[in-house]
Amino acid sequence: MSFGTVAIIGLGLQGGSIGLAVQEFLPEARTTGYDFNPATRARAAELGLVHSVCETAEEAVGSANLVIFCVPPGAMGESATQVRDAIPADALVSDVGSCKQSIAAALREALPDHTVIPAHPVAGTENSGPDAGFAHLFRNRWCILTPAVQTDLVKLSQLVTFWEALGANVEIMDARHHDLVLAVTSHLPHLIAYTIVGTASDLEDVTQSEVIKYSAGGFRDFTRIASSDPVMWRDICLANREALSAALDRYTEDLARLAALVRSGDGQALEQVFQHAKQARDRFVAMLEP
Amino acid sequence: MSFGTVAIIGLGLQGGSIGLAVQEFLPEARTTGYDFNPATRARAAELGLVHSVCETAEEAVGSANLVIFCVPPGAMGESATQVRDAIPADALVSDVGSCKQSIAAALREALPDHTVIPAHPVAGTENSGPDAGFAHLFRNRWCILTPAVQTDLVKLSQLVTFWEALGANVEIMDARHHDLVLAVTSHLPHLIAYTIVGTASDLEDVTQSEVIKYSAGGFRDFTRIASSDPVMWRDICLANREALSAALDRYTEDLARLAALVRSGDGQALEQVFQHAKQARDRFVAMLEP
Repeated sequence: MSFGTVAIIGLGLQGGSIGLAVQEFLPEARTTGYDFNPATRARAAELGLVHSVCETAEEAVGSANLVIFCVPPGAMGESATQVRDAIPADALVSDVGSCKQSIAAALREALPDHTVIPAHPVAGTENSGPDAGFAHLFRNRWCILTPAVQTDLVKLSQLVTFWEALGANVEIMDARHHDLVLAVTSHLPHLIAYTIVGTASDLEDVTQSEVIKYSAGGFRDFTRIASSDPVMWRDICLANREALSAALDRYTEDLARLAALVRSGDGQALEQVFQHAKQARDRFVAMLEP
Repeated sequence: MSFGTVAIIGLGLQGGSIGLAVQEFLPEARTTGYDFNPATRARAAELGLVHSVCETAEEAVGSANLVIFCVPPGAMGESATQVRDAIPADALVSDVGSCKQSIAAALREALPDHTVIPAHPVAGTENSGPDAGFAHLFRNRWCILTPAVQTDLVKLSQLVTFWEALGANVEIMDARHHDLVLAVTSHLPHLIAYTIVGTASDLEDVTQSEVIKYSAGGFRDFTRIASSDPVMWRDICLANREALSAALDRYTEDLARLAALVRSGDGQALEQVFQHAKQARDRFVAMLEP
């Protein structure tokens, strides 16, 4: 076992799930944890998310072999700076953030003397907070690692082994490319879901209770992710601003073209667009469920 | 039992489900059915979607007390015209289309001497065709009826009873208002889902296999409805063009505002938008699951 003690900073959905998963799948490891919110610390202790919930972040990381920051992207730098002097020199530092370039930069700036290997488990639910965590969150999900070119391969392989033990399939990727891919597969869908819920709740001629009653027509499942944590998604939008803006531009152009077809009543072109999208999605699903 | 024989024209997801549901929940009724596609007729007979799959639409409706058109919105008028002379004079005519003003007009123009009460069961899946049907599709779903002002109340109450027997909750609504509400809760989400799948499958810098692999980040569930039937959705867009265009305009404005906040990096405003949407959605869910 590579990591005798795993320290988790931030005990929400991701941090709590890692704590539970390590206890279940790596029972020989010790887990410590900290959250800046006292209520979250208390709840994490009640739920047993880690073996030991500490009163300070410094205490949590003090004897760690692996430190995983599970705070919103915008809080990574500050959280890391706070514990810089407390993290053992040979400990490996990682995170779970949904955008990698900016978080990698923030962690490396805060911890210039440590080995930092950023990670992103592509797993989640629309729920957040310590009660949302569960040990099997990462099972059969991808976890993307974005090591720097000069990263120590022994430490990298230890982190790969760690995530595989938690049930994930590990992929190594360039941080910039990660941010492009996730802008499309995750960040853009969240932005759209937040937008359409806002649009629907601000209409004058359709009441909110009508939106709810008839949401089985598509709205309900479609907007599930709009219940996600607003602070985390604010940070993701800021951190991956460039790639997300580019994806938004492409999508907005495509939508404007489709809106023009609806307005002009061009049935043939609409059918082509829908057919193209259906074929693409059916192909996606076939590849996921062979 | 009000309807001794129920004729179903169109044996896809909706028509097939009605046939199965009538057989399960109204076992004393006889069901007949027709589909213009010979392969669908053959499959419907194999699956027993109705008691009797007929070789012509005229034969299917010949002894019906209730005729339900379950064809795409754009085919309603022609389907009804075809069987005008075969439908018994006292039979009630209905449909299951997702937009009500244009379908009501088409059915009433085709069948000026019959009682037409348009209906829309707000129930469906992303699957289509005869194999997609199941008897419990309508259970605990809303079915919206949009009768004309002068509609015979006895016939209206018979149709209400029919849908309640199939497990639905029935709502009476003005057709124009129906089209406004469904533009937001169903038609707009479908358009958006088709759009983003198209956007994602046409990117140069992200491969399709990457979109698939990392679709657990939101994309996968979000785009489920983009596997829906392109012909039906073409027709819905054309039939509800006005309300859908208005909803698209509102949504596009909201999205442009959000895109500007992402571009300018306005974290405070982004968080407010996300918070507002999350609260609205959480409120929706709380009202659905009391």
